[in-house]
Amino acid sequence: MEKVTCSIITIGDELLIGQVVDTNSAWMSQELNNIGVWVHYRVAVGDVWDDIWNALDEESKRSHVILITGGLGPTADDITKPLLCKYFGGKLVMHQPTLEHVTYLFEHVFKRPMPLLERNRKQAEVPDVCTVIKNELGTAPAMLFEKNGKIFISMPGVPQEMQGIMKKEVLPLLKQRFQLPHIGHRTLLTAGTGESILAEQIKDFESALPQNIKLAYLPNYGMVRLRLTGTGDASIETELDKQFAQMRKLVKEFLVVDEDITLEVLIGRLLKERNKTVATAESCTGGYIAHLITTVPGSSAYFMGSVVSYDNRIKKEVLHVTDETLKTFGAVSEETVTEMLKGILCTMKTDYGIAVSGIMGPDGGTQDKPAGTVWIAVGNNQNIETKKLHFRFDRKRNIELTSINALNVLRSFILKHN
Amino acid sequence: MEKVTCSIITIGDELLIGQVVDTNSAWMSQELNNIGVWVHYRVAVGDVWDDIWNALDEESKRSHVILITGGLGPTADDITKPLLCKYFGGKLVMHQPTLEHVTYLFEHVFKRPMPLLERNRKQAEVPDVCTVIKNELGTAPAMLFEKNGKIFISMPGVPQEMQGIMKKEVLPLLKQRFQLPHIGHRTLLTAGTGESILAEQIKDFESALPQNIKLAYLPNYGMVRLRLTGTGDASIETELDKQFAQMRKLVKEFLVVDEDITLEVLIGRLLKERNKTVATAESCTGGYIAHLITTVPGSSAYFMGSVVSYDNRIKKEVLHVTDETLKTFGAVSEETVTEMLKGILCTMKTDYGIAVSGIMGPDGGTQDKPAGTVWIAVGNNQNIETKKLHFRFDRKRNIELTSINALNVLRSFILKHN
Repeated sequence: MEKVTCSIITIGDELLIGQVVDTNSAWMSQELNNIGVWVHYRVAVGDVWDDIWNALDEESKRSHVILITGGLGPTADDITKPLLCKYFGGKLVMHQPTLEHVTYLFEHVFKRPMPLLERNRKQAEVPDVCTVIKNELGTAPAMLFEKNGKIFISMPGVPQEMQGIMKKEVLPLLKQRFQLPHIGHRTLLTAGTGESILAEQIKDFESALPQNIKLAYLPNYGMVRLRLTGTGDASIETELDKQFAQMRKLVKEFLVVDEDITLEVLIGRLLKERNKTVATAESCTGGYIAHLITTVPGSSAYFMGSVVSYDNRIKKEVLHVTDETLKTFGAVSEETVTEMLKGILCTMKTDYGIAVSGIMGPDGGTQDKPAGTVWIAVGNNQNIETKKLHFRFDRKRNIELTSINALNVLRSFILKHN
Repeated sequence: MEKVTCSIITIGDELLIGQVVDTNSAWMSQELNNIGVWVHYRVAVGDVWDDIWNALDEESKRSHVILITGGLGPTADDITKPLLCKYFGGKLVMHQPTLEHVTYLFEHVFKRPMPLLERNRKQAEVPDVCTVIKNELGTAPAMLFEKNGKIFISMPGVPQEMQGIMKKEVLPLLKQRFQLPHIGHRTLLTAGTGESILAEQIKDFESALPQNIKLAYLPNYGMVRLRLTGTGDASIETELDKQFAQMRKLVKEFLVVDEDITLEVLIGRLLKERNKTVATAESCTGGYIAHLITTVPGSSAYFMGSVVSYDNRIKKEVLHVTDETLKTFGAVSEETVTEMLKGILCTMKTDYGIAVSGIMGPDGGTQDKPAGTVWIAVGNNQNIETKKLHFRFDRKRNIELTSINALNVLRSFILKHN
């Protein structure tokens, strides 16, 4: 079976002056990889006629499928549609179903004034040599072209619109058009160690993997996901299960969960299964742990709330940390986070609690407690566990790392103290 | 003056299977654009010999400067260094100062065991045809090559390391090597309207802009930044001031701040100038407003804390919202957020307060109050302002939009009630 290859071309000046981070390409690559299409080239060009034209020429020599995003807005600098029209030798015509869709969106969804609709009428014009693909969520339709056996699909750059079109139309179309291999994934999440320690630990396993199974390290905020990807036919699933079980054993001491889910989703599941609740008392993380927990839909079932006690006065008045503790040991100490934890368990009446206090930097550090020093306490009414951490990154990253570490201490605490 | 052009090549399989979002390219583009270097092509390729080789060939035809990131790690699949060595016709030699730096990092900074150091020794090998550029923060040095009058610089892909090398070495080097134009920027932040309304409002202004001044729309979470970029010599600054003053007037009703800073930084400044404090009472945002405020270094001077009252019990017990209010009007109502606000002002004893309650979705909506319904209250002990909002996006985006809107209500409240 020949490898089906894809190039992604993203168009827009905003990419080349760094106004926006291109998240579309990563999302598209993941989805394409999932169905067995190999992305081997990604290109970003500005709203410049010759650059776009060249990119189309070059990428169509390289790949079977060329996916194009961006450059389809109603403003003057968007030249992609006329260019595609010329490149594929067509002329622009009004596409009636798209016009009706644009009008519907303006009247019933966006509820915007008519002058803007006028400007957006031309969104419904398409080259007469393309197959129009409906964009449910926006005004610019996607367009499919074919030339010399290659498939070109142009989509708007708005992430939600592009994702809708990919899921509903493009991915099914590619699966139908090409004979794609069977792709299987197995992912596990580790914490408490880095990529190179893990690599040492599983280097024999990795080098003994069969040709058609690849291992990827996906580091993210002090945690590392390990993903096996198998390519072949349906029988690869059995082989993946076998290899995955082996890998699971090798990294056991660092294993968080053997599924492709986030730590906050896992914690939600553990709490719901046990019908338990949690609350947080946060100083240095400023509410970020609560934020992570509440990004999970349905978290109101187990998350009661949080006290962000940024100022010491709030630690005392709302969480009942004693003045003596703060004076003797300081706000960043085992004693203070322990009292914060007791305070939040009492105030919120939850089964579990998390408390954190630290110095996130860049200022506020001392010789004894440099910026990056963090204390975490996790517990219930019977047991308390504490942990001291040191980070040496920037403020934002310290906040994220502290939060992830605190959630991971909670995870293991829940498993130990049911 | 000839335009100095740059291509960015990012290397790594992780980019092409969508494991990581390429934030490096956006950062590099911004910095290059700032000093007058025009990025006109960005390419991402995997750890594939021919693809990297082709990218070097193609981009050196296109641009004066070729910046390469990634592919320099100590693992087996990183082939970039041997490839560069062959491409520029050199051989790998041990670079003594780099070896000393790597050893120093392992012994004193990472404090990692020696087997890992052994694996990392080869990080200090470089092609004998390059100029080595020190990487203060990591083990892989940057390398500069020249060929046919073009400059190639290869850097590690770790963002902090790349950024350090760019700031300290690469940008100064480019400024010295090329005659670059003078670049000036003027940025303002708007809120409360979309890109297309703004575009309508300033379309005459935009089309009358001199050739050497460009306008960019930078949308971000319901706010839009407008940026003028002037290219030329030092005299462009006067022209920029003139045009900026005019643009400022045209968008006055939506203007948040006429500087390139975030809303949370602005709020910090307003509070510090007035020697005032703030606290938040958050339901649906789950601590995200507190998080935004505390991402600003030094925010402990004016941010006292937050009560995240996710459960109604916490609204009652900690924020003293009455049972009657919750029963009569519901948790998502003007009455409830008003009582939450009073509660937080009383609990935290701050000058200003923010309270929010809403339904972030996807579940939890009703006919009367669909998912995306939000109430915001902002005030002090004398005055309270409330605002109702409707969003129709996904949960994460609703949380972000609610938070940004709440901060913007606070901003205008502070300005009105000093």
